[in-house]
Amino acid sequence: PSSYSITLIPGDGIGPEIISVAKDVLVLVGSLEGIKFEFQEVLMGGAALDATGVPLPDDTLSAAKQSHAVLLGAVGGYKWDKNEKHLKPETGLLQIRKELGVFANLRPATVYSPLVDASTLKREVAEGVDIMLIRELTGGIYFGEPRGFGTNENGEEIGFNTEIYATHEIDRIAHFAFKVAQKRCGKLCSVDKANVLEASMLWRKRFLAIAQEYPDVELSHMYVDNASMQLIRDPKQFDTMVTNNIFGDILSDEASMVTGSIGMLPSASLGASGPGLFEPIHGSAPDIAGQDKANPFATVLSAAMLLRYGLGEEKAAKRIENAVVDTLNRGFRTGDIYSAGTKLVGCKQLGEEILKSV
Amino acid sequence: PSSYSITLIPGDGIGPEIISVAKDVLVLVGSLEGIKFEFQEVLMGGAALDATGVPLPDDTLSAAKQSHAVLLGAVGGYKWDKNEKHLKPETGLLQIRKELGVFANLRPATVYSPLVDASTLKREVAEGVDIMLIRELTGGIYFGEPRGFGTNENGEEIGFNTEIYATHEIDRIAHFAFKVAQKRCGKLCSVDKANVLEASMLWRKRFLAIAQEYPDVELSHMYVDNASMQLIRDPKQFDTMVTNNIFGDILSDEASMVTGSIGMLPSASLGASGPGLFEPIHGSAPDIAGQDKANPFATVLSAAMLLRYGLGEEKAAKRIENAVVDTLNRGFRTGDIYSAGTKLVGCKQLGEEILKSV
Ligand SMILES: CC(C)[C@H](C(=O)O)[C@@H](O)C(=O)O
Ligand SMILES: CC(C)[C@H](C(=O)O)[C@@H](O)C(=O)O
Repeated sequence: PSSYSITLIPGDGIGPEIISVAKDVLVLVGSLEGIKFEFQEVLMGGAALDATGVPLPDDTLSAAKQSHAVLLGAVGGYKWDKNEKHLKPETGLLQIRKELGVFANLRPATVYSPLVDASTLKREVAEGVDIMLIRELTGGIYFGEPRGFGTNENGEEIGFNTEIYATHEIDRIAHFAFKVAQKRCGKLCSVDKANVLEASMLWRKRFLAIAQEYPDVELSHMYVDNASMQLIRDPKQFDTMVTNNIFGDILSDEASMVTGSIGMLPSASLGASGPGLFEPIHGSAPDIAGQDKANPFATVLSAAMLLRYGLGEEKAAKRIENAVVDTLNRGFRTGDIYSAGTKLVGCKQLGEEILKSV
Repeated sequence: PSSYSITLIPGDGIGPEIISVAKDVLVLVGSLEGIKFEFQEVLMGGAALDATGVPLPDDTLSAAKQSHAVLLGAVGGYKWDKNEKHLKPETGLLQIRKELGVFANLRPATVYSPLVDASTLKREVAEGVDIMLIRELTGGIYFGEPRGFGTNENGEEIGFNTEIYATHEIDRIAHFAFKVAQKRCGKLCSVDKANVLEASMLWRKRFLAIAQEYPDVELSHMYVDNASMQLIRDPKQFDTMVTNNIFGDILSDEASMVTGSIGMLPSASLGASGPGLFEPIHGSAPDIAGQDKANPFATVLSAAMLLRYGLGEEKAAKRIENAVVDTLNRGFRTGDIYSAGTKLVGCKQLGEEILKSV
């Protein structure tokens, strides 16, 4: 039987509640599929700041690096919002992404039929939306140097950042995206701002060059402003999308809101080798933390992505995804996705129902 | 009677058709309100490239600078899409914005009741949306230096741009935005990415400082990724929004698509002094150019913004806006906003109907 070590990072807010559900699901699915997991729980974000003074302790990073995959709840909260940048929970997240080299962030935006009415978009527009958005995660303006504050020639304060991409950074995310598109409908839309930004011009040039190696994938290009419109006008036109770090941050959140239920959406961040990082796309929701109200579906689906993309355990991944659909079909809902006629339950009970569906 | 010189830039694609309608409307409203206009028509974008080899000829720029206001149709088209950057139609647009110093771009996203079903959002979500988005237009990553291409220490090609804001650039757009918010509902939402970008941290710091001078305005801050979600989830939560150049490019297009009818939306770009630049937010639509199918409403409404913000002629502006609503109420529509039970007309005839409503 296969055996894997998994780093669990519950994080802040609702993180511990949803990670606990996902862990139980992994254990059960593992026992059914002959997979053994060894879990190690470590601190990151606000929890780490409180305990150790830094958002990403060395112990956490080395545990993560030595494991086969990392499952993260969520980080952040009001308590640390006013911290200086290097002492923000989010900084821990950016650091672990960079340290693990997880340059490719997979963000599916899937509308589950029983939840289609959760979308603010008309039923006929939202129904059947199934987008895989791939965001470059370790480059661009998030990490570009020079950055900081300074004084200009008039003695005024300035703040600046650098949007920068090197060929190898673009090439690796391009290859990754083309391969994902190959396994889906064979359509890849690359989003940039090549009519204005040089960094985008190089991006587009490299995508055009690499497209030669994937004649079975139909590559298109779209400006980011247009993409932000098209996601609302007709989201079903998109299959696989790929874009840079900052545009991906904005568009993936937009795409997830198109589905209306961000409590359902997982993500996977992968590198060339080494452990991947898997986390729900929603935040730590400090306002409902500890009240057994959190929706654990997105984290459970992140565990499915962990099995598929992190460990290559497709059958086990599928088993989790089927269990989620079955639980939805049996009518169980947390408050964020509740509608009349369905059964409102807490995070814990939903977890138990998912286990029954596994 | 007041007398103004107006620079008309029809531009490319449908530009000439829609500018011609807007000009007729200005002339009629002027005659009713005792305002004289002197028009000068000049070239920009693709039309200028074909005639002079550059996207913004000196003659055009000096005509614009010497006039009281500039009304622009649209620029761009397939024909020039593969041009090098300095020979793109869009470059002419960026140049004239910079040369006129129009740092504040006003982008209303208004849902007209008769057109609420044009939105892909549910009626109850879209109805009553009335957002004024203010985009910083002459700074940030669009113009920041250094920018360009180069080689890194590994001999790889790189592409880079600089997101940079100086205090005075932030302060002037902040004052502008607070004043607009004062005249609206007194709520201002500033959008940034201050959890990651230093340029955004300075932005937020300055907005907080300047807020002291506007105690009657309620300032809030939102991260750009969250804003892109909230615009879909509940657009009515927003009244006045303000953000930087690139985030404004993305969010203003998203906000306009929330209304479902971008053929209705005007914009105004204003500086500290000198002529403003007024243009519809839609593009040059080369696929329907010359076919009398274009929707002139957005350009006519841009002429209304020209009267209000460019010339201070509030009464004349209101007269145009009322005429647009009246024409809609009388059921006249171009193809892009047509629905069963309304009267489909071409660009010219719609223009005549607007004149009747003036
Ligand atoms: C918390 C923040 C730094 C982060 C990002 O911008 O990448 C988040 O928005 C995300 O998308 O995972
Ligand atoms: C054409 C392009 C350069 C321009 C921009 O990005 O500013 C356009 O998208 C706009 O929003 O007016």
